[in-house]
Amino acid sequence: MALFAERGFENTTVSEIAERAGVTERTFFRHFADKREVLFEGAGALEELLVTTVADAPDPAGPLDAIAAGLDAIAEMFQERRDFSRQRRAIIAANPELQERELIKLANWAVALAEVLRRRGVPDPAAALAAETGIAVFRIAWERWTDEGNDRDFAELIQESFAELKAVTAAT
Amino acid sequence: MALFAERGFENTTVSEIAERAGVTERTFFRHFADKREVLFEGAGALEELLVTTVADAPDPAGPLDAIAAGLDAIAEMFQERRDFSRQRRAIIAANPELQERELIKLANWAVALAEVLRRRGVPDPAAALAAETGIAVFRIAWERWTDEGNDRDFAELIQESFAELKAVTAAT
Repeated sequence: MALFAERGFENTTVSEIAERAGVTERTFFRHFADKREVLFEGAGALEELLVTTVADAPDPAGPLDAIAAGLDAIAEMFQERRDFSRQRRAIIAANPELQERELIKLANWAVALAEVLRRRGVPDPAAALAAETGIAVFRIAWERWTDEGNDRDFAELIQESFAELKAVTAAT
Repeated sequence: MALFAERGFENTTVSEIAERAGVTERTFFRHFADKREVLFEGAGALEELLVTTVADAPDPAGPLDAIAAGLDAIAEMFQERRDFSRQRRAIIAANPELQERELIKLANWAVALAEVLRRRGVPDPAAALAAETGIAVFRIAWERWTDEGNDRDFAELIQESFAELKAVTAAT
């Protein structure tokens, strides 16, 4: 990851990454399918945490409240990794292929969220809408949180995005 | 497009498309960079119509109302092309590369929408949130509209999605 930041994603080879990490290329490929995976490690675990937290939200919680609980849980995991997240954002912003991958990851999260809301008894289209909206809230809070100079908590920015969403929809 | 539906996107060559259309391959490539473009023709014009309609929405319209006006304008263009849209959806659903392209297209629309809202004086994060939310509303209405057996108007489904969004956010 530091290598991507130093040399650019395209100019970094797997053998350089392996060398820096003190492992063989073979070991690298036991952990990652390709070098893109280095930037998306943990995405599966985050999705899992998001989905189980939403599934376990107290029964009376509405769909957006349940999603807010899930986002809170992952915000806590992110919070310690702000510098990492800023570096990662810059690397992804510089590479269209990585941007696509990031979009796909978030689209998958939205699909998983909609599915867990349906299991909670939320009908469609409310389930799909709440899921997509929740991911939009997350993305925008994430961008603010990784803006240079922003030192506010991720969880706080997520809450603020939810409040903003309510204000925007209520004004219509 | 009919060829994609008959043979699958992967199994259709540019020379077959050109032959069916009664043009040379050279003429094909004057119009399209590659065969994917056949499915994304008109996306630029739709984005343009969306953005200008939002820009020209009456002054007091809030961000989501302005976006709703833009989506109404493009819904009218879609309405006549329901069978085409259903075929296109099936082709895209069968091919991950096309799904990525579709995600990127919608992400670009969201970026363009946020930009035009900022020019209308909407501050961030409200501009970005309204834009992403508007695209979520559009996607979900589009999926319902292209569901087999659904014969309701696209514009009506968009309105319903907006109403659903308000209900979901108000309930929180």
